[in-house]
Order: sequence, then C-alpha cells, then structure tokens
Amino acid sequence: MVADHYAGDAVAQQILDAARHQFAMFGLRRSTIDDVAKRAGLSRITVYRRFSTKNNLIEACLTRECRFLLRELDQALGELPTMEDRVVEGFVVSMQYARGHPLIGGLLRVEPEVVLPFLTVNGGPALVALREYIAGHLRRGQSAPDDADREPEPVAELMVRIAVSFLLNPESCVEIDDAEQCRAFARRYLAPLIGY
Amino acid sequence: MVADHYAGDAVAQQILDAARHQFAMFGLRRSTIDDVAKRAGLSRITVYRRFSTKNNLIEACLTRECRFLLRELDQALGELPTMEDRVVEGFVVSMQYARGHPLIGGLLRVEPEVVLPFLTVNGGPALVALREYIAGHLRRGQSAPDDADREPEPVAELMVRIAVSFLLNPESCVEIDDAEQCRAFARRYLAPLIGY
Repeated sequence: MVADHYAGDAVAQQILDAARHQFAMFGLRRSTIDDVAKRAGLSRITVYRRFSTKNNLIEACLTRECRFLLRELDQALGELPTMEDRVVEGFVVSMQYARGHPLIGGLLRVEPEVVLPFLTVNGGPALVALREYIAGHLRRGQSAPDDADREPEPVAELMVRIAVSFLLNPESCVEIDDAEQCRAFARRYLAPLIGY
Repeated sequence: MVADHYAGDAVAQQILDAARHQFAMFGLRRSTIDDVAKRAGLSRITVYRRFSTKNNLIEACLTRECRFLLRELDQALGELPTMEDRVVEGFVVSMQYARGHPLIGGLLRVEPEVVLPFLTVNGGPALVALREYIAGHLRRGQSAPDDADREPEPVAELMVRIAVSFLLNPESCVEIDDAEQCRAFARRYLAPLIGY
C-alpha cells in the first residue's frame, strides 16, 4: 500500500480535501497554498507547517488519490477467481479511474505541462508504490515451488508503465476508453506477463 | 518510416539544423524562432514561411531526430539473425539513443515541463510513426501461415510505449542505463511479445 504519512492527521486530511476541490476546480497553475488554506478554513501557517511548498501539497494530494485507487482495486478484484482475471480487470478499472479522475485525466487535458512532471520524471515514488502493490498480489498468487525464484517486480512495473503510458497518450490502435477493447487488450497482452 | 515533409527542401534542413543547435544549447523555453533564423543566417520571414509557430518547429525537429533513430536502427539491426535479437537490440539502441540525445534525454532533465507534452499528450504522430516502423518489421518477419491473422500493431505499440515510459521515468527495478541489464530485460519481457 502507498505509505500514508497523514493517515491519523485530521487537519492534514482537511487540507488535502480542500486541495482536491481547489485543484479540480481551478487547476494546479492558478491555485496557491493560500487558496487552499482559505477553502479549508485554516490559517496559512497551519497549511505551510504540513506542506511547505505547493509541489509538496500536489504530490501528497495525488498520492492520496492513488491510494483511493488501490482501495477501489482491492474491492473490485477481491472476488475474482484467477490472477489473470485480476490483472485484466485491474487494468480496466485503473484506466477508467485515472482517465475519468478530475486531478489526473482532467488536468492532463487542461494543463498537461503542469501535471505531466508529477506523472513522469517526478513520478518515481508513485510508480514504485504501485509496482509494490501489484508485486505483492502477484507474489501471493504464486503457489508452485518453481515460482520461488521468480521476482514479480519487473512484471508488476511493466503493468504500471503500460497503464500510465495509455493515460499519458491515448492515441492507440486500441480504443482504450471502450471497456470491451480495453479488456480484450489486457487479456491478450498483459495477462500472459504473469507467466514470465 | 516517419514521413519527411522537408526531405527535398534544403532551406528547411538548414533551419532544422540551426534549431537543433539552438535548442540543444539554450533549451526550448528561452529559444525563439528569431534565434533560430539568426543562427541559420536566414530572414525571419523565410523561417516563418515554413514553420509558422515555435511548436511546429520543435515538432519538426523532434520528428527528424526520430527519423535519424530509425536509420540507426536499420543499420544496427539489419544483420541480426532472428526477430528476437532485433527486438532486444532495438530496445537497447533506442534507449541509449534517446537517453543520451541532447534534445530528448537532455531536455527532459533540464526543462521537463516544456518537452514532456511533445513526448506524451502531443506525441501521438511520433508514436504512430514508430509503431508502424516496428509493425512493418514484425510483419515482414512473419512466415508461418497461422501468422496471417495476427496484427502486429498492438505488439509494436506496446514496445514503443514501454521504451518511452523508461525514457520518461527511469526509476525502475531494472538499471536501464546498464546495457547488460537493459538487454536481459528486453530478452525476457519484450521478445516474447512477438509470439502474441
């Protein structure tokens, strides 16, 4: 699971809720920490004490949304019978979540140059967190003894990279917003990665 | 091959050479079309007639560098015995080329927010061009009759997406700048895609 530094901090959650609203309505570029403080009904000092820069606040906000996705995935995939099914539905659910999310797909459309660094060159921690989440699932799914020396991290990372790539550039021979095409693509090209 | 609208146009090539130098030395943000005109020894009007905006000029410049990569790939891979080998070396050569390229890897490090849109949300045409190049090779490599109904485009696109993803975010469980690790990764995870 993505580490949650602010889990027990009600004020931080209040700030992140306000930031989520602020960024979704006005974008990242024009929003200031002061705007977020005002929206949260808190003093600037209180906000700055937890998030010293706007970039810190944006990162914490996106990391929390990422954690919400993992919670949704746990619910959506828990009952599925096979690891293949979980990979396929996990891809479909993640694409829908991210493409439709106001702070991810939404901001990518309206101010790509501001949000892109958080999803690429500065996206290392989120990529690692998502990779570890998937790798954990893949590892628990390994049962045969010959699986023991197989590290699931590269496969998990590939799955995250492919999903992020479709998010960043949906121009594709696959209609990724069509759930059936998205599912068929994942079934044919992503599910077999489990076997590597 | 990536369409070359300026192949027979010596003045356009002169402008693109100047743009390449200008962007590599001063980055995209601070460079103007006037800077490029001055460097090329041409009038502003001559440059504007071919490239009406700075974005057009950047796109044409990056597309040409992309074409240079394909030429390098043709030379590097032509003699390799199997399609697997070509996929593996193609990945290694492409990663080295792009990571070390002043206008791609170089600008990604110094002004990511300016160059990222060209490699993601506005990168559709380049992605399609690279996909078609690889798909053409994969199609020529298909010999068995049961390959006839297999479209190589999705596999080709996946290869491009994975390479671009490592370029945009090299934080990985694979040390992608280490040619041996890069090669082993491609051999284990990319080469098998040919069979799908």
